[in-house]
Amino acid sequence: MIIIFKENAPEKELGALREEIKSLGLEIHESVGEKTRLWGLVGDTSRVDMDWLSARQIVDEVKRVQEPYKKANRKFHPKDTVVDIHGKKIGGGHFQVIAGPCSIESEEQMNSVAKSVAKSGAGFLRGGAFKPRTSPYAFQGLHNEGLKLLLEAKKACGLPVVTELMSVQHIDLFQNVDVIQIGARNMQNFELLKEVGKLKTPVLLKRGLANTLEELLMSAEYIMAGGNENVILCERGIRTFETSTRNTLDLSAIPMLKSKTHLPVIVDPSHACGIRWMVEPMALAAVAAGADGLMIEVHNDPEKALCDGPQSLTPEMFEQLMGKVQSMVQFMKNLSA
Amino acid sequence: MIIIFKENAPEKELGALREEIKSLGLEIHESVGEKTRLWGLVGDTSRVDMDWLSARQIVDEVKRVQEPYKKANRKFHPKDTVVDIHGKKIGGGHFQVIAGPCSIESEEQMNSVAKSVAKSGAGFLRGGAFKPRTSPYAFQGLHNEGLKLLLEAKKACGLPVVTELMSVQHIDLFQNVDVIQIGARNMQNFELLKEVGKLKTPVLLKRGLANTLEELLMSAEYIMAGGNENVILCERGIRTFETSTRNTLDLSAIPMLKSKTHLPVIVDPSHACGIRWMVEPMALAAVAAGADGLMIEVHNDPEKALCDGPQSLTPEMFEQLMGKVQSMVQFMKNLSA
Amino acid sequence: MIIIFKENAPEKELGALREEIKSLGLEIHESVGEKTRLWGLVGDTSRVDMDWLSARQIVDEVKRVQEPYKKANRKFHPKDTVVDIHGKKIGGGHFQVIAGPCSIESEEQMNSVAKSVAKSGAGFLRGGAFKPRTSPYAFQGLHNEGLKLLLEAKKACGLPVVTELMSVQHIDLFQNVDVIQIGARNMQNFELLKEVGKLKTPVLLKRGLANTLEELLMSAEYIMAGGNENVILCERGIRTFETSTRNTLDLSAIPMLKSKTHLPVIVDPSHACGIRWMVEPMALAAVAAGADGLMIEVHNDPEKALCDGPQSLTPEMFEQLMGKVQSMVQFMKNLSA
Amino acid sequence: MIIIFKENAPEKELGALREEIKSLGLEIHESVGEKTRLWGLVGDTSRVDMDWLSARQIVDEVKRVQEPYKKANRKFHPKDTVVDIHGKKIGGGHFQVIAGPCSIESEEQMNSVAKSVAKSGAGFLRGGAFKPRTSPYAFQGLHNEGLKLLLEAKKACGLPVVTELMSVQHIDLFQNVDVIQIGARNMQNFELLKEVGKLKTPVLLKRGLANTLEELLMSAEYIMAGGNENVILCERGIRTFETSTRNTLDLSAIPMLKSKTHLPVIVDPSHACGIRWMVEPMALAAVAAGADGLMIEVHNDPEKALCDGPQSLTPEMFEQLMGKVQSMVQFMKNLSA
Repeated sequence: MIIIFKENAPEKELGALREEIKSLGLEIHESVGEKTRLWGLVGDTSRVDMDWLSARQIVDEVKRVQEPYKKANRKFHPKDTVVDIHGKKIGGGHFQVIAGPCSIESEEQMNSVAKSVAKSGAGFLRGGAFKPRTSPYAFQGLHNEGLKLLLEAKKACGLPVVTELMSVQHIDLFQNVDVIQIGARNMQNFELLKEVGKLKTPVLLKRGLANTLEELLMSAEYIMAGGNENVILCERGIRTFETSTRNTLDLSAIPMLKSKTHLPVIVDPSHACGIRWMVEPMALAAVAAGADGLMIEVHNDPEKALCDGPQSLTPEMFEQLMGKVQSMVQFMKNLSA
Repeated sequence: MIIIFKENAPEKELGALREEIKSLGLEIHESVGEKTRLWGLVGDTSRVDMDWLSARQIVDEVKRVQEPYKKANRKFHPKDTVVDIHGKKIGGGHFQVIAGPCSIESEEQMNSVAKSVAKSGAGFLRGGAFKPRTSPYAFQGLHNEGLKLLLEAKKACGLPVVTELMSVQHIDLFQNVDVIQIGARNMQNFELLKEVGKLKTPVLLKRGLANTLEELLMSAEYIMAGGNENVILCERGIRTFETSTRNTLDLSAIPMLKSKTHLPVIVDPSHACGIRWMVEPMALAAVAAGADGLMIEVHNDPEKALCDGPQSLTPEMFEQLMGKVQSMVQFMKNLSA
Repeated sequence: MIIIFKENAPEKELGALREEIKSLGLEIHESVGEKTRLWGLVGDTSRVDMDWLSARQIVDEVKRVQEPYKKANRKFHPKDTVVDIHGKKIGGGHFQVIAGPCSIESEEQMNSVAKSVAKSGAGFLRGGAFKPRTSPYAFQGLHNEGLKLLLEAKKACGLPVVTELMSVQHIDLFQNVDVIQIGARNMQNFELLKEVGKLKTPVLLKRGLANTLEELLMSAEYIMAGGNENVILCERGIRTFETSTRNTLDLSAIPMLKSKTHLPVIVDPSHACGIRWMVEPMALAAVAAGADGLMIEVHNDPEKALCDGPQSLTPEMFEQLMGKVQSMVQFMKNLSA
Repeated sequence: MIIIFKENAPEKELGALREEIKSLGLEIHESVGEKTRLWGLVGDTSRVDMDWLSARQIVDEVKRVQEPYKKANRKFHPKDTVVDIHGKKIGGGHFQVIAGPCSIESEEQMNSVAKSVAKSGAGFLRGGAFKPRTSPYAFQGLHNEGLKLLLEAKKACGLPVVTELMSVQHIDLFQNVDVIQIGARNMQNFELLKEVGKLKTPVLLKRGLANTLEELLMSAEYIMAGGNENVILCERGIRTFETSTRNTLDLSAIPMLKSKTHLPVIVDPSHACGIRWMVEPMALAAVAAGADGLMIEVHNDPEKALCDGPQSLTPEMFEQLMGKVQSMVQFMKNLSA
């Protein structure tokens, strides 16, 4: 951490700050120029609040050198984390596809989609029982009833299931869920992060629409600091000025995240683009950029879907996509071999 | 709502969709050109999900004409809402300043700030007991203990209090709070919105960092649809590419919101800019743009604040600001008279 | 084009507007609901200015249905454009890599880079003689002297050359240049677009940092409307709130552009990310997303480069990248076969 | 400037870099921690290219401490610049309103608007002869003929004129223009900036749609480095995700710019919002935030305007606005007195 002081900062106040910083166990390296005075703070600064320093009248600016996250930081944990869910592994060279409908609508729908995605090679079944919807008048999900249908479909197809938790008050209903998803709008719902941090269930953490990669890692840190180190990160598009796609899929997030953290990184091209025919090119591009997995929306009858129909693939389209994705995964393995 | 069809959409599928739309009680006005077929849907389309239409293979694009919110819509409620909190009114020509520290730190701090802001003319006391912090290692607030200190300070200064609710599980602790704040990061925490919608306590709803004004109004609609119509909207800066200020304060949101909704609109220049000396010019600009109130961070010792020190005013700075703000409010009243 | 009128728009003004619209050769399909009156304009609306309509007091909103570009529009030109530069083809299944240094610095540098990228399989040599730099104190390029070195290097390596034109006043110097690049900052320098529209030289048009895909296509339309239909589009990253990469590479732009236009689309991962080690994953992802080519910065000594050193590959790194890119191009061909 | 090195950077390469930096006349202050080595560069670093340093393999990150602009920097020129145009002053307490139509359309239009805005108290007449339009099929301005009409209107109303220069090749036509406007899309047209830097005519420099305040100041520096120090900065809205206004007017840019530079700062609410009825509240807010002037679009018949009709005021609306603006300017003077 570097502190840049204002010109003519009084020696008395510098002295007082020097004592406070030393009392945190940090060393100070000072550099004084004609107009500029800098301090480099040496030691573990991950818990030092930048605002606490920049609030001082004598301080002009504070810059971080060390990342503010530790458990999620590859510097301290160079080896890739492999999340193992009943034998299905993600990360460290293990690639998985999570597929299923946006929302759970009926027994028939879930069982039909579950069987077809399992047959096509998906590793996990997804489906939402609690749906975050912009409008209070839109379908909000089947809630507890939906979770039951999901767990039945799990039995039918044999795949572990991924579903979104929207509120601390529903957490008890999620005991048999294999992976708990924290959605983009809840990436900084810190109370929810703390609660899933107390569980053992792996967490799929989606990047918020306007959140930096550092903030995503800080949210992962919340979960890990609570004791749950099974976190899977998911890029799903960010909000920009471009309106032809629903969001802008930031594939450069994959190599950047993988350089900064040991956690697995997957991509959701369905939500990013919001358009069915864009899912295939963006899924392939995500694999080429190094993703550890994909999350794809599949619906038995997209035209009648209660949610996100425009971006859902039919089971036939998904079957075809899986073939291409598996070839690409193999191709990338050969390329880096 | 307007549906634009793809060229050569088969008559059979058009017919099926026509029946479905009519069954919703909507009329269809068709317009057929050489290459384009449009349908204008006439009737109450606020509950029609655009995705449900755009998922169809035959549909090229769907455009909304009516706003998707009703209770928050000025078209249906032309008169300004005045929120009345124990006699303190906001909206419809009533202007209020909410002031206090970012976070509640101690009895001494709260009482000292509370008395000074009351003396300077603030209408409400703010202070956070539950703090949304990007880092799990940063100060998270005093929680229940903090709420007690806030309510004691309320007694001491006589001002109604505003404080942030971050999770459904804390809602019982907020029974004596006068205004519940929903923070920017929770603007689309829909489960939380539904819960405060069941209360009678007025809600101060902050715009999310990357949320459009329409989304802000849809979140207000969530609360109002639950039965709580006492919603105050708050612009607090949005996330853009500019980095010299913490966020970009969008003051054009004030006249735009006031044209679309009858709800009061206030502005938080402290969080928007993140810099103490910018609070005054932006506070005055907000009043000039038509804001119904301001939310200002004041700390008895900003250099030692546990949170947001760089943007906090001292009580002396606040006293001076209040004088200017009150003059500006009066000036604007005279100008429009 | 759809016009949505305000409630109670007077019949007299509607009549006057009706006459004006008919005089443009457009038909009007009217749809009148309880609160809403819509007109669908049928005919060629690509030259109708939306503002001209929305300026009317009686108009609430105007929405476009047809795209405002014609020559660049795939609807009117379904077949892929193949740009042929002395036998080197881009588009319609032909893939090309453009490589070379950011700026031309010396004869030795250019010849050394030119030979090595040619040997590695690049199809075009790039190098900047006129450099757009944020600071007036930064190296601005060798100008005419640089162009001479570029043309000498062209002779030495046999590759056609691509270089940026920044101002109409330099256009005469570009007579022997094979492809003229219009940089991101000049994407809406309309006077420059008009001038290159008068030439026969193919134009590489880069997307501006904050420009939508529709605006990019409108800028291509400027060039094509002047008579030069050899336009290659280039995605090079857009400006967002994320700061860990220089820009955010928008790879979804590739399939979206290719659905809307017949023009070739290439990607510049070097400028998008600004970081050397990110070039490879993003280059491979671009190919997987369907790009028709790549633009890659290569420098014989990146640590001493006068411009963009941090993102430049060494010739050895480029050699390795080319091998992977060529495998990926072949893999994608097989996949879609 | 601060250089943060990678762990285990070899002493040999550190030594070589140390020599290069010293040869630029800079001193190095070194700070070595357990995992981190920092160098603080002391001296005039405004001309040191950050990329030149960050391209090194041994360098992890480079951070700027000093601003990269000098002539525009308030640190070196604490006193406000007052631009004096034939006795009309802007900056340093002098407030001016620039008014007129978006584009010059006819003699009758210009003379009528010119007389009415002069009568209402505008200080300058604006009007565009060269218009940057997104579509090649939109009205492009009357060019030389338009400039003649502008200069005739100047004679008629007695106000100095402001008009946009879009290309170096038109510069000779602008000899009698009082203030040359560089539009938002040309803010980083560096060749154009260099040319107007050679003139004595004051330059009104608009902020680009996606440009930071630092980039705006660097573009001002281009003009000033050429010898023309009469630069007026103009905030006119930036591009964000919000679509209800054309752009997002960033009024916090006013105090921020005025803290960093001595140049005058004006605001264009017409282009920022794109909506007629938002001009008044945003104009008043701009004055309250400390702007040195306003630029307002006025048209004698906005419904028939060839460009930007939706945001143009009628002369009557402008007359009323001017009254309020003048009161606000006076109010702000009294407030700070």
